[in-house]
Amino acid sequence: MEADHSKREGIREDELDSLEANATYNMNHKARGSAIIFNHEHFLENLDQRKGTDVDAFKLRNSLERLGFSVVSYKDRKAEEIENIITEASEVDHSEYDCFVVAILSHGGNGYINAYDHPYKPDILWTKFSADNCKTLVGKPKLFFIQACQGSELDNGITLSVQTDSSSTNEFSFHEEDFLIANSSIPGFFSFRNEEKGSYFVGSLCSMLDKRGTDYDILTLMTMVNHHVAIYFESNSEEEMYHAKKQIPCIHSTLTRRLKFNIKTKRITTE
Amino acid sequence: MEADHSKREGIREDELDSLEANATYNMNHKARGSAIIFNHEHFLENLDQRKGTDVDAFKLRNSLERLGFSVVSYKDRKAEEIENIITEASEVDHSEYDCFVVAILSHGGNGYINAYDHPYKPDILWTKFSADNCKTLVGKPKLFFIQACQGSELDNGITLSVQTDSSSTNEFSFHEEDFLIANSSIPGFFSFRNEEKGSYFVGSLCSMLDKRGTDYDILTLMTMVNHHVAIYFESNSEEEMYHAKKQIPCIHSTLTRRLKFNIKTKRITTE
Repeated sequence: MEADHSKREGIREDELDSLEANATYNMNHKARGSAIIFNHEHFLENLDQRKGTDVDAFKLRNSLERLGFSVVSYKDRKAEEIENIITEASEVDHSEYDCFVVAILSHGGNGYINAYDHPYKPDILWTKFSADNCKTLVGKPKLFFIQACQGSELDNGITLSVQTDSSSTNEFSFHEEDFLIANSSIPGFFSFRNEEKGSYFVGSLCSMLDKRGTDYDILTLMTMVNHHVAIYFESNSEEEMYHAKKQIPCIHSTLTRRLKFNIKTKRITTE
Repeated sequence: MEADHSKREGIREDELDSLEANATYNMNHKARGSAIIFNHEHFLENLDQRKGTDVDAFKLRNSLERLGFSVVSYKDRKAEEIENIITEASEVDHSEYDCFVVAILSHGGNGYINAYDHPYKPDILWTKFSADNCKTLVGKPKLFFIQACQGSELDNGITLSVQTDSSSTNEFSFHEEDFLIANSSIPGFFSFRNEEKGSYFVGSLCSMLDKRGTDYDILTLMTMVNHHVAIYFESNSEEEMYHAKKQIPCIHSTLTRRLKFNIKTKRITTE
């Protein structure tokens, strides 16, 4: 882009004052907001059962409710159902809410996440919450937590065959401010899950939210989750190729302010 | 991943103590470290001159030197030269340095950045600094600042023609902890630059580093840069299609600790 004549240059002192005075998202709305969990254990065909995912879903619900979210959890939904649920959520009036959360627990790969019936592009999760599409969340943080496994070796051939136009998209493309996407790992790399205890990433995330969720801002919390997963977790498997592997989560942020959860009344919600 | 038997569950209290005690990168090495700037104004063919980029390069050098970096700036280098410079930088002994920085000022698109002669995949900038390839930067933050324009409409047909295998890569794929990539914008979207004052993103970034670089951690600094670019900048162009457009930078982080620059002696370095 060449021809810009505004001649803005860097940050003026008065702008810096304003940035610092408005450095934190307003978390004093009437309610914290909605959180949606898409929990996938069984799949129509070809993909392994995700044993342990209910443990993750339980922990997430608990941690998010402690922070004041109204949580709704959906199990083993089809791609079209997920899109409909997301569309409905984007049409809710969020005026009196602080923020919005979506969490995904599923198989996935480079540029897609598996629903019960078939893979979908994760973009559908967040495009409905752009400023144009969801005016009551403008200027508010929209958070997406994605625990997505690569699937077992056996699955890859099948799932990858749907990836015909992945060049035009990637799992982290969002074109708007005030979004945070926290991925359990880089697509193509492992995301470990224990069949009894749940996944590493969700386990660390929920511990951090439970123990320090109102002490640090979200990027610091997620940095500590990165640290914990990277340093403390090493897989322990009977299968050589899955043994002693590491995992590193990744944060993608267009947040424009610090997000710090304050203490808010716990909300009890139902499945 | 199914068969993991380590049965780790969340974060133990002693682990949390350790995470908090080690929550910040060690910035007390003998020197801050190296910073490399790849500054592109002219291209072999088909791409517009990037007027104003020398202003960005000057500001970046100044801001990084103020933070104690030893800065080397390269102008209009070919892709192979860039790869060689990066390889050499990865072979340097960084033992006594806090961290490492690369900044890119160029045209680019979805999955590539333009060198003087042809486009290259940005992966080559960071893969050389993985734990396997650069042991003296293990556990230290590796920062990449990318000001990359999409190029003018006219350019797209030419540059995109090299994108034959972009499905297997994206601009933000890194598989290791302790990396931060800050992009001026999402590929495919505008990154504005003024021909006299330089780019919005680098202008805001350098102001923030100059004025608050030792006051906040890097994720907070970059969040304030996001805010400034998103809120204060709107393009002002004689061409309708480039007028009144917004831009939002994006942060990709696998950092595992808070990165906060302390005050260090300014280092004077040469081009």
